[in-house]
Amino acid sequence: MAELQTALDENAWWFILSEGKLVALDKGDFIPFGNVNELPFPEGATANKRLLGQYKDQPCYLVEVEGSLDVGLGGYVTLRSFLGRIDDLLFDMAGRAFQIALFYKTHQFCGQCGQKMQPINWEVAMKCYHCQHRTYPRVSPCIIVAIRKNKQILLALHNRHLKENYPVYTTLAGFTEAGETLEACVAREVFEEVGIKVKNIRYVSSQPWPFPHSLMMGFIADYDSGEIKVDPHELIEANWYHANDLPVIPRHGTIARKLIEKTLKRCR
Amino acid sequence: MAELQTALDENAWWFILSEGKLVALDKGDFIPFGNVNELPFPEGATANKRLLGQYKDQPCYLVEVEGSLDVGLGGYVTLRSFLGRIDDLLFDMAGRAFQIALFYKTHQFCGQCGQKMQPINWEVAMKCYHCQHRTYPRVSPCIIVAIRKNKQILLALHNRHLKENYPVYTTLAGFTEAGETLEACVAREVFEEVGIKVKNIRYVSSQPWPFPHSLMMGFIADYDSGEIKVDPHELIEANWYHANDLPVIPRHGTIARKLIEKTLKRCR
Repeated sequence: MAELQTALDENAWWFILSEGKLVALDKGDFIPFGNVNELPFPEGATANKRLLGQYKDQPCYLVEVEGSLDVGLGGYVTLRSFLGRIDDLLFDMAGRAFQIALFYKTHQFCGQCGQKMQPINWEVAMKCYHCQHRTYPRVSPCIIVAIRKNKQILLALHNRHLKENYPVYTTLAGFTEAGETLEACVAREVFEEVGIKVKNIRYVSSQPWPFPHSLMMGFIADYDSGEIKVDPHELIEANWYHANDLPVIPRHGTIARKLIEKTLKRCR
Repeated sequence: MAELQTALDENAWWFILSEGKLVALDKGDFIPFGNVNELPFPEGATANKRLLGQYKDQPCYLVEVEGSLDVGLGGYVTLRSFLGRIDDLLFDMAGRAFQIALFYKTHQFCGQCGQKMQPINWEVAMKCYHCQHRTYPRVSPCIIVAIRKNKQILLALHNRHLKENYPVYTTLAGFTEAGETLEACVAREVFEEVGIKVKNIRYVSSQPWPFPHSLMMGFIADYDSGEIKVDPHELIEANWYHANDLPVIPRHGTIARKLIEKTLKRCR
């Protein structure tokens, strides 16, 4: 962000975080908007406000408050509950608010020497003035891939979804490792998780996924060879499905859904 | 990596790091290969070896040694000197070696509570048993983009290249921020660095860039509107160039070169 200073009396979007939740209105754009002097913030709460960026040409601020203070604006909601319910750009800004807050929380001490780190005031970064180590918010690149085999799509039931009480059948995904291209990551993850080889790996689009700080890079690919053999550490099961006989798939607004729909079109 | 245990008497590739440099042979594949018992390692040097992955179906190990020990294998070289001189996959593995070593060096202490962290033995991660914070090697997603305007390409002279005494004219690049798609990052970086708007943003390919831990995601785009106005913090100059009147461009083996060549083909 080029400009970290703004006037105090301007209108702005306020991303107010408290105990891992976000203050949301129950109407309109959900995110509180207005002049800081007219909003019912508790005394001193905006002293530590941080500029996140701009939405609709207005600044967006992160404000962290302690405890479940009644800020008179609405209820506290999880970030996940916003998925697909608010404008994509506003959701991504809310995700950014959580990620920036997490960055400061998890980078108070220098990983190299253990001394206290200090925020840099002209960019989002922490610096250790003891050993000069500097660090930025983590964005973890992660591939996600939908695989087609003739008129069928591969969908898997993930262990982590069962744990979240959210049994959907979806695409495969995994974090990019150091020294790996995205395309090599797709091939490795698919082989590790279901034991098959894929070809024609093509990028589709990306989506920030702030749980807690992933960036999903979406691909489609075609089946090449091998039989499905699931990695039980990751998956309950994985199967080939016809477009007219699908299990429960992820909701709209997720990149997984987008990749699945794109693949199903190619199955017809 | 699924398997972190291997036999001690197997043949392997050895990535030996010392004071920020890599031990390299002056012939063949450059990276030492062989049975650990037959290689002239100093006493105990391989006790802390770490599995990096596989190359040509053989394991690759990171070994860190202190000081400029004579390991009897060749000279010490920088990672950058390998660029374009060794096989891509072997270069990426060497990059991975540097990144894994940097990860352990910069994550000795917990960023959240300041206590000592401990390595996890079944994946490349550090864990704080005091506050339960866990962390993985950082891979920083970064976009890089070549821009076409009719029969011309935009090339820029970067401040950082002048500092490195390496005056090449190249593409624009920048780190993806938290909460941003790759495509939004391309548009933002281009606008911040040269003040123009771009359209038809298309992904081409990716390249790990271990200086120190970037993952370059390469795009091409077309000029949409605006006049070039460079950000003096980033660039010395930026101009539109015809394919038959190019300045010095990056060397082969870089994704910048690949994107430039792809764009020049489209200029013809």
